[in-house]
Amino acid sequence: MPTYAADLEAVRAAAARLAGAVRRTPVMTSRTVDELAGRSVYLKCENLQTTGSFKYRGATNAVRKLDDATAARGVVTHSSGNHAQALALAAKVRRIPAYVVMPKNAPAVKRAAVEGYGGRVTLCEPTLEARETAAAELVARTGGVLIPPFDHPDIIAGQGTAALELLDEVPDLDAVVAPVGGGGLLSGCCIAARGLNPAVRVFGAEPAGADDAARSKAAGERLPAGPPDTIADGLLTGLGELTWPVVRDRVERIVTVTDDQIRAAMRLVWERVKLVVEPSGAVSLAAVLSDEFRSLADIRTVGVVLSGGNVNLDKLYW
Amino acid sequence: MPTYAADLEAVRAAAARLAGAVRRTPVMTSRTVDELAGRSVYLKCENLQTTGSFKYRGATNAVRKLDDATAARGVVTHSSGNHAQALALAAKVRRIPAYVVMPKNAPAVKRAAVEGYGGRVTLCEPTLEARETAAAELVARTGGVLIPPFDHPDIIAGQGTAALELLDEVPDLDAVVAPVGGGGLLSGCCIAARGLNPAVRVFGAEPAGADDAARSKAAGERLPAGPPDTIADGLLTGLGELTWPVVRDRVERIVTVTDDQIRAAMRLVWERVKLVVEPSGAVSLAAVLSDEFRSLADIRTVGVVLSGGNVNLDKLYW
Repeated sequence: MPTYAADLEAVRAAAARLAGAVRRTPVMTSRTVDELAGRSVYLKCENLQTTGSFKYRGATNAVRKLDDATAARGVVTHSSGNHAQALALAAKVRRIPAYVVMPKNAPAVKRAAVEGYGGRVTLCEPTLEARETAAAELVARTGGVLIPPFDHPDIIAGQGTAALELLDEVPDLDAVVAPVGGGGLLSGCCIAARGLNPAVRVFGAEPAGADDAARSKAAGERLPAGPPDTIADGLLTGLGELTWPVVRDRVERIVTVTDDQIRAAMRLVWERVKLVVEPSGAVSLAAVLSDEFRSLADIRTVGVVLSGGNVNLDKLYW
Repeated sequence: MPTYAADLEAVRAAAARLAGAVRRTPVMTSRTVDELAGRSVYLKCENLQTTGSFKYRGATNAVRKLDDATAARGVVTHSSGNHAQALALAAKVRRIPAYVVMPKNAPAVKRAAVEGYGGRVTLCEPTLEARETAAAELVARTGGVLIPPFDHPDIIAGQGTAALELLDEVPDLDAVVAPVGGGGLLSGCCIAARGLNPAVRVFGAEPAGADDAARSKAAGERLPAGPPDTIADGLLTGLGELTWPVVRDRVERIVTVTDDQIRAAMRLVWERVKLVVEPSGAVSLAAVLSDEFRSLADIRTVGVVLSGGNVNLDKLYW
């Protein structure tokens, strides 16, 4: 068996490291969701995680693992999304600085969220090159450690703790479904779930308008993300070098869903489960409600990671 | 000590009756809420209860207590809100009919919700008199039992189980705050909380635009509800004959809040706690965030009942 960036032991070590620092989020059920899915669905509510997404798991794991001398110089990332908020708070809790590079056209509300958690924001031009250059400059200037959003063993292991908790609470799951952008959550959950029980089937859920993981699986090689076109703004990036091998070898299938399916699943969660999920956070449920997934045999029970709940409430999504 | 419609033993008996039939809802915390409240706040999430509100507790308790012969004839109520949905489902679970009288101007979505749970809806003119007449006719015709929304010992005891769970999970609460409309939830929670620990201080939270409980407390006698003017459409009714004595004797104070305060608390819960609460469901938190409540001494920890989450998602509330 090939070696991946993280294994079950790494996820277990992360879980021990996160105890008391990260929420054990509830697992919820809904008879309406079960009826629509045609099977028993267990919703792992990472939208209820601190900072509003699962990202706080990986960020806290990475920050806690740093030795004191390294940590004191701070952490650096470039992100305008949930990872930036998560890293900012994880750093604040350890009383170290977090330097966050954000594109100058990022919404004011996202910048405010990062700053609200104590992150120090550097603005740059809205290109990947400018972001990477600015982050490298910050690393050079501060001596801080770059903590990327997904393609890092400690991030992958940290995100996997969500599946560890899910299977601890519902041990007889036949399948687990997680959304896939860069693949940190999906690969971590896959390692954890199949490490605990090799018979568990693991699926990725991806927006049709950002379907590089599905295309990569079909091609058998990691393909870059195309220009994205989806409401699920947390799932736009392509797979990483470390996450791809897990997705390639250990994930059964990537199910893609349209924005209309995402919106319908999101509304279902708001309306019937009474939880605020963001579009990216509802993609996994949208996949489970799709004809493609409903037609799969031998799945009686499925765990679904609702990955985040950070939305702009001034907006109507339907 | 005077005798009330229910006591701690009745609430405990209700809890035993509801085990496995009603959700033990999670208790959630938020550091943002704690900062704004100036103390530790424990949110009892009855918006996550089956049918989207605490009403399912009382309705299920009342329905389960019926003997088989009586139950077989069905249950009757007049309500257009959360009690109607709760009673419809409680009856469906027992496989007995639920007859629900609704005003003909009730929103289509509410009628659909009741019918979705199997309730048989009878429409009437939108006056209290017409509703009561229609309900009485249904009782006469079907032999069914009238299950009122709040002023009934089994309803009061059932709603009190929310506080029983809350104190079981957070035993060292200094105070409990519940919203008050008819007073079923507030009186039940008061009986349970102060029955378990007489030192617990219990507060009611009421919209300023439907403040009969506050006025009744001030006057020392039960005053009728005036014409209501509030966004909190679940709290429009006045106190009942059975709920009033508990509120009069055992509740420390009724804190009133404006619709702007309710909206702000509601948005805070959606945005930071990631839960969908309805306006009535956020009134208790609005009270805890008010200057009046914040200025109270010797309350380090407070339990807050978020009572429901049934909103129309086509609407923007801010």
